[in-house]
Amino acid sequence: MRLQASTFGFREISTPIFEHAELFTIKSGPSILEEMYAFTDKGGRDITLRPEITAPVIRFFVNELTDAPRPLKVFYIGPCFRYERPQSGRFREFFQFGAELIGAQNPESDAEVIALAASIVEKAGLKDYRIRVGHIGILRKKLRDAGVSPEMIPSILQKLDKKLYDDARPIMEQAGMSDGSIDEVIGITKVTGTVSVLEDFEGESRDYLQDVAKILDASHVKNLRIDLGVIRGLDYYTGVVFEVDVLNLGAEKQVCGGGSYSLSELFGGERVFSTGFAIGFDRTLLVLEEEGFKAPRRAIEAYVIPVSERMREKAFEIASALRARGIAADVDLMRRNLAKNLKYANSIKARRAVIVGEKELETRCVIVRDMETGDQRAVKIDDLVEFFVKCGGNGV
Amino acid sequence: MRLQASTFGFREISTPIFEHAELFTIKSGPSILEEMYAFTDKGGRDITLRPEITAPVIRFFVNELTDAPRPLKVFYIGPCFRYERPQSGRFREFFQFGAELIGAQNPESDAEVIALAASIVEKAGLKDYRIRVGHIGILRKKLRDAGVSPEMIPSILQKLDKKLYDDARPIMEQAGMSDGSIDEVIGITKVTGTVSVLEDFEGESRDYLQDVAKILDASHVKNLRIDLGVIRGLDYYTGVVFEVDVLNLGAEKQVCGGGSYSLSELFGGERVFSTGFAIGFDRTLLVLEEEGFKAPRRAIEAYVIPVSERMREKAFEIASALRARGIAADVDLMRRNLAKNLKYANSIKARRAVIVGEKELETRCVIVRDMETGDQRAVKIDDLVEFFVKCGGNGV
Repeated sequence: MRLQASTFGFREISTPIFEHAELFTIKSGPSILEEMYAFTDKGGRDITLRPEITAPVIRFFVNELTDAPRPLKVFYIGPCFRYERPQSGRFREFFQFGAELIGAQNPESDAEVIALAASIVEKAGLKDYRIRVGHIGILRKKLRDAGVSPEMIPSILQKLDKKLYDDARPIMEQAGMSDGSIDEVIGITKVTGTVSVLEDFEGESRDYLQDVAKILDASHVKNLRIDLGVIRGLDYYTGVVFEVDVLNLGAEKQVCGGGSYSLSELFGGERVFSTGFAIGFDRTLLVLEEEGFKAPRRAIEAYVIPVSERMREKAFEIASALRARGIAADVDLMRRNLAKNLKYANSIKARRAVIVGEKELETRCVIVRDMETGDQRAVKIDDLVEFFVKCGGNGV
Repeated sequence: MRLQASTFGFREISTPIFEHAELFTIKSGPSILEEMYAFTDKGGRDITLRPEITAPVIRFFVNELTDAPRPLKVFYIGPCFRYERPQSGRFREFFQFGAELIGAQNPESDAEVIALAASIVEKAGLKDYRIRVGHIGILRKKLRDAGVSPEMIPSILQKLDKKLYDDARPIMEQAGMSDGSIDEVIGITKVTGTVSVLEDFEGESRDYLQDVAKILDASHVKNLRIDLGVIRGLDYYTGVVFEVDVLNLGAEKQVCGGGSYSLSELFGGERVFSTGFAIGFDRTLLVLEEEGFKAPRRAIEAYVIPVSERMREKAFEIASALRARGIAADVDLMRRNLAKNLKYANSIKARRAVIVGEKELETRCVIVRDMETGDQRAVKIDDLVEFFVKCGGNGV
């Protein structure tokens, strides 16, 4: 993830694990208090284990980075906390990766963020995923055009976000909407498909979303679909919103969500448009597990075995030379005999054993044994590092 | 740090941010309670933000990994918490890197851990550091030989650890030691120098420490010195102990400490010998800053600039192709004109600008501008990825 993000020109940022509760209630409303780990410390200060990292990043931006060249592209990885009953794929402590592109507001900047999310989901090895992209401006306009007052819009969108149509309908009626308008709005939340579904709409938000889709297409982003039902409940989203779902075990699981938003003014800064997303590690790992994915472990290229006590220092000299060239090497630390060492080398899945024997050492050689095939050959110690470099022993 | 650790055959391990307070008091005694962030959660459970990660790792080992092949080589990176007045280089939340080699007890395993610490300190870019290695067995034996009862030894060692000789002396007198023995013990804590200083000693611990030094020498570990004054206060250390100091701004600063220990039996497991260390990130960063070190940022190899709106999708197509090959690329997200884009490319220290112009595109070319020299040349789009690969644009 770090590599993907830096390839896209995002820089890592780190914020504290605990913060004042206010930071999060400003962003998400007081209801988040119930879901947070909040404490009073020994000095009587209220502190909270962060439930998410977007608010801390934007606070940091407002305090420290408003003069930096824009756009600012940052990402974070770290633990977050949620006070709730643990359930499958949802833990009280969970890792989150996220990115924020701060200070730009146009189809390119939104597409850039979606492309990064897509790239990370793809590189993580997820298979049956789809990226659903919408624009809340389309629904907002429809509600405004139907005469809904601005104060009523958030509560309607919250219900529509959760597809709670039976709850949304009376609120829309109360807001003065006709049955026809209500049906039309509900219809919009069900619009999903290729970019061509946007042809039935018009207006700024529609054009904007089409432009985002064009850039994503040029960026070769796969598994994309337009979905005007993506709303993302919270009021600070300003335009494009997106979610990544994974289809597995029959159920849909959201592993990533994001969109364009404006938060900095809530933390005392000027209004600055941003786009961001967060990916839940644990959910993603759970899905990968269910898909049968095995996390790649960096292989031990060389397990160095001294055949006798007198060879011990030489073994460390050899391991040290390999490591200095970035080749992952391990060495006998248990004074095992050769047979037991080979067994251990197998158990840690070392690719090759380097056997340091007295006889071979007389000709400045060691035996290199391929742990898979069992093939053995003598290699000059002076050529050993090069031998491993040529084997591709630099890879992670 | 991750790369170094995996090159040495250590695997990353992750443990929770909060734990039961008991885990840490078992290891470090009740006095650590005062230094910890301890809370009662909404369910009435006592929880603690971890002050260190060795106890959680050993607890995890006892619960989950006792059947794994030994030695087990693990490392961790993560935030820890300490309730105290913040001061220079000491924060309430601090990052710690550490490694534990579990299930081995001999000079090689201790040397292996010290060599990893050395490699990390060296790669971090620290300059004026020294690694001080001692063996508490030497002092313990001297105290036992002088007739001190086992129960008295920890309190004496704690004072000697802090060089509080005036406090240590009356305890040693009370323990029945002669003035001569006391002077001798205090003398030992001042023994420091090359491995030859060990020639004045004898016994198992001396021989063991000499063997550690031999392996470290074979492993080309630099800036090493024997220091029998390294004691590391805590009772669970069993043999070799070491610290890494940095000499800067006139003061000495410890950035790393560790040693061989036995903890698993305290968490309900069998007695298993281990060696480990922890490095404080913040202290290390502070030292690096004082040494004038600048953290290397991964360079943006290509900043792609569309000269007009019509070139915008092509610009994303190009950025996407570069990124797919792992080349760090950025692209105009602000619709700036060429001059302003070049200025921004400069401000983010991009190595090259890729200018996508209408005229060049007719011949399927783009202009590549070296941002340092200002040299420009036309490159075929089909050859662009290869061009950047050849420039070494894969590096981090």
